[in-house]
Amino acid sequence: MEKVFVIKIGGNIIDDEKKLASFLKDFASIDGKKILVHGGGKLATKLASQLGVEQQIIDGRRITDAETLKIVTMVYAGYINKNIVAKLQSHHCNAIGLSGADGNVIQSHKRMHPTIDYGFVGDIDSVNSSFLKNLLEQNISIVIAPITVDMNGQLLNTNADTIAQEIAKALGSFYDVELIYSFEKSGVLLDVKDETSLIKKINPSAYKKLKEEKKIFEGMIPKLDNAFAALQSGVRKVIIGKAEELNQLISGNSGTSIINE
Amino acid sequence: MEKVFVIKIGGNIIDDEKKLASFLKDFASIDGKKILVHGGGKLATKLASQLGVEQQIIDGRRITDAETLKIVTMVYAGYINKNIVAKLQSHHCNAIGLSGADGNVIQSHKRMHPTIDYGFVGDIDSVNSSFLKNLLEQNISIVIAPITVDMNGQLLNTNADTIAQEIAKALGSFYDVELIYSFEKSGVLLDVKDETSLIKKINPSAYKKLKEEKKIFEGMIPKLDNAFAALQSGVRKVIIGKAEELNQLISGNSGTSIINE
Repeated sequence: MEKVFVIKIGGNIIDDEKKLASFLKDFASIDGKKILVHGGGKLATKLASQLGVEQQIIDGRRITDAETLKIVTMVYAGYINKNIVAKLQSHHCNAIGLSGADGNVIQSHKRMHPTIDYGFVGDIDSVNSSFLKNLLEQNISIVIAPITVDMNGQLLNTNADTIAQEIAKALGSFYDVELIYSFEKSGVLLDVKDETSLIKKINPSAYKKLKEEKKIFEGMIPKLDNAFAALQSGVRKVIIGKAEELNQLISGNSGTSIINE
Repeated sequence: MEKVFVIKIGGNIIDDEKKLASFLKDFASIDGKKILVHGGGKLATKLASQLGVEQQIIDGRRITDAETLKIVTMVYAGYINKNIVAKLQSHHCNAIGLSGADGNVIQSHKRMHPTIDYGFVGDIDSVNSSFLKNLLEQNISIVIAPITVDMNGQLLNTNADTIAQEIAKALGSFYDVELIYSFEKSGVLLDVKDETSLIKKINPSAYKKLKEEKKIFEGMIPKLDNAFAALQSGVRKVIIGKAEELNQLISGNSGTSIINE
């Protein structure tokens, strides 16, 4: 099967103009089929504060009220997504930017929670893999903004890590999919302050042990849960590592490899 | 040849939630291939004023400085475009929202003018008709935001009427294209305050005469110039009329028909 790279880029890289430009140059140079899923960065928070829209955080989670949804739709699906696509075009990488609503590519439903109202936050129901496949077969690279849509045409703010995972899984039956979570760290670290404490490989039993010993940084846990879930659903390889080392992540010479056995 | 409708919707309709919802329901119900080109409306001006970004108007034209470009990219390609697509999806009309950067669908260059610096404003060089064709052949409706891109990855604010015209012309070799400019008026009016003074048909010689007699409302002149240019470049039919009467515009029972002879 042909290879497809599904690459998530974290918010900290998006906030850094130089790092983002360098990352996009590397992404454009990847030979073959590829999908980029981007998060939001601090731009939405900044715009909300400029507009006097108060950001509500409950249990460390941002609540997406109607005004916040408007802001993230503008920033994620508008500003960030179109600037990434334009930059890739300038590197002769033909790209298309999509939200989940476009081509009904990611359908979701509003998150239901017994005690917390997250507002306009979506949990994913399905990925339109045949539409993605059609674009990839035209050698068009796809850039996904973390905004999805429900059956009633309601846009919903959606976690970009989960989008990357679901897309990787959905394409697993057609392609040899490698899922790469790229961000500001070198990968999964034993000591979050020490970049040399990189764990090169991690399997489920090692993960369990590290979690029990509380040696995994809390922020990494959802990423790793996502990674193992992806592996169990037909994704061939998952790598977590530094956005600035994209080429090495792809060649397998950097980052943490998440493996099944 | 198969028919394709290229429909431009004006800013006044976008600003009116009810009228927009009703228009999108009508658009979704059109049988066959269709493209919607939307303008901006007052939302961008409102956001600019909220953010304290001063809007410079020279000779009745808005100057697009860097901050304004950021705002129109967010509002046009983000908020308006994605909300239109989401609404169409809820009407079971599979749609995709594109800026000119996506799939390199509309390439432009920064406008050069001997005395006025318009800022980040684009004049169109080319339309990627084979990409549009591929989407239309999948029965996906296309929704275009008036933001284009130059060769260097610079996003540019671009007139939506002209985008509609250029797309209609580019598709003229593959399809039987009808170009519809829909807005808040019934069509081309002899008296702009009197909706019953509608001109049902207008050809180049009648247009010339009406212009000489100053009977054409100034704001209509660029639209009509666009319309005649489109007819001369392979577009079969151009109609100008009321957005609320989209079905009648399509069936030819409303609006002003622009004709060649």
